[in-house]
Amino acid sequence: MNVKEIVADIKAKKPEIKSLLFVGCGASMSEMFPAKYFMDRNAKTLRSSIHTANEFNYSTPVSCDETAIVVTCSLSGGTPEAVAATKKARELGASVVSVTINPESPLATNAEYQIIHGFYANYAAKMEKMGNVLAFACEVLNAYEGYADYDAMQDGFAKIYDLIENAVSTLTPTAKKFADSYADDPMIYVMGSGAAQMSAYSFSMFLLMEMQWIPSSYFNAGEFFHGPFELVDKDVPYLLLMSDGPTRPMDSRALTFLQRFDAKVTVVDAKDYGLSSAIDKSVVEFFNPMLITGVLRVYAEQLAIVRNHPLTMRRYMWKIEY
Amino acid sequence: MNVKEIVADIKAKKPEIKSLLFVGCGASMSEMFPAKYFMDRNAKTLRSSIHTANEFNYSTPVSCDETAIVVTCSLSGGTPEAVAATKKARELGASVVSVTINPESPLATNAEYQIIHGFYANYAAKMEKMGNVLAFACEVLNAYEGYADYDAMQDGFAKIYDLIENAVSTLTPTAKKFADSYADDPMIYVMGSGAAQMSAYSFSMFLLMEMQWIPSSYFNAGEFFHGPFELVDKDVPYLLLMSDGPTRPMDSRALTFLQRFDAKVTVVDAKDYGLSSAIDKSVVEFFNPMLITGVLRVYAEQLAIVRNHPLTMRRYMWKIEY
Repeated sequence: MNVKEIVADIKAKKPEIKSLLFVGCGASMSEMFPAKYFMDRNAKTLRSSIHTANEFNYSTPVSCDETAIVVTCSLSGGTPEAVAATKKARELGASVVSVTINPESPLATNAEYQIIHGFYANYAAKMEKMGNVLAFACEVLNAYEGYADYDAMQDGFAKIYDLIENAVSTLTPTAKKFADSYADDPMIYVMGSGAAQMSAYSFSMFLLMEMQWIPSSYFNAGEFFHGPFELVDKDVPYLLLMSDGPTRPMDSRALTFLQRFDAKVTVVDAKDYGLSSAIDKSVVEFFNPMLITGVLRVYAEQLAIVRNHPLTMRRYMWKIEY
Repeated sequence: MNVKEIVADIKAKKPEIKSLLFVGCGASMSEMFPAKYFMDRNAKTLRSSIHTANEFNYSTPVSCDETAIVVTCSLSGGTPEAVAATKKARELGASVVSVTINPESPLATNAEYQIIHGFYANYAAKMEKMGNVLAFACEVLNAYEGYADYDAMQDGFAKIYDLIENAVSTLTPTAKKFADSYADDPMIYVMGSGAAQMSAYSFSMFLLMEMQWIPSSYFNAGEFFHGPFELVDKDVPYLLLMSDGPTRPMDSRALTFLQRFDAKVTVVDAKDYGLSSAIDKSVVEFFNPMLITGVLRVYAEQLAIVRNHPLTMRRYMWKIEY
């Protein structure tokens, strides 16, 4: 079943629901954030929340009952915390949709519905997880309470994957320049706003700290001005994710500040890759994370090459029990 | 009006509401997080969400209408983004409750209701902001959909302020030890779980980066194992906030890992200060942030003394326009 069919099937069984919960770990959790942000912005009545899986497991929201849809997500489908959450949500009567590349995985087989996505084919495929969860949220919203910009979203989904592939096709020199410049920095700050704020989280937590062992910190571009901007100084390294759409002034304000004090700043700007030329203004903000995260993948790959530190290298993950 | 009276007054005007939104910046936003977490865990139908104020201003949720209660928060009551959010929420028909120390401030005068709290009297007073917002959420939940553990929460509010004062009364040597040990670290990682995860955020973003100019990164203790634990090594400095209650196993797991690889770790543990002896198990998790954040204030003060860097010292904030 595709996302539309899954939602139709759930609605046939449950004509009314109250909540849409997103449960996962690490990159998988952050790749569900755009869907959570979309629901926060657009839902008049439906509740939504996002949880790292063990927090859901240990302190489960009372809203997780037969009136809830729970989306669980794990790339491999084997993340133990996410599998446990999948089982728990079903026990509690929720409709559970798992999102993974592997239909035989415990995540998939323990869920009522499966969204199976690609990853390895190309950069666009790596963004299918994020895109499918967003598309699913859009279907839920439209089916249960109606959503005026549904068609604009569908048009966006029809275009975003080509936009990503187009963006990365000529990106290597730009990404290599970033990699050469940041390879030896002792720490990198990453920030973004709106739907893309967890693209900053994901790059900081997983691409930099996990996969490159580079200390990093991330924050919302608005929160920057309420604290961590005090660390801005000449040559302090920042990576700023600039979104197209309503929260762009938050990113622009951060950029102006960073430039004013000669910080070292690299900007990944959705506007540079034609997001708003292609996608309707009413929904453009929800597509920033897919485009920006797709672009950032190339940045990470170039960093891995320059630093001679493959993205697959780990010292603890997959190596020891913990 | 106290929080109970405010909720009664709102309910008299609006017998039904759908959403409770928390809007603020920086430390004020993070001090509303325990209330948001409380709502996420306990509300069967009521929606809740939390927003840094400019994100609310630039991309306003459609749920912010006459069916919403919006809580805005700013210590001084003058934070421009929070004041703008207060005005915007009222224009949209929401009932707006402002939380500040200053009843004459723009935040207070632009809101329909005011919660005026202390700050300077003692450590317990510094936690009144967080406590009042949590108490307000508890009243909203009880008034609109009923809440089985309401009495346990009230008992908790009756005890938590004394617990904080008691905790800090003998804390100076412990906090000084932390300060001596971490004063020269180039970066400090901070983590916590559950309701206390934004106590980690707040200490990292505001006490360390803003007020001490110490680079820092924060994450959820569960998320730690999905990425940034790859940076753990001998003597790498961590501050771990351990909660009492259901998410404690997440914190314990992180501690075990940090100790196993000889990281430098300081633990601030709510259990050490008698949280669960005083407060009922059914609600204890919601009181971790007040106790832990109160204790952390002393840690920050000792760091400021050892580093000869007052907590009020800024290079940009209050000094320049931005």
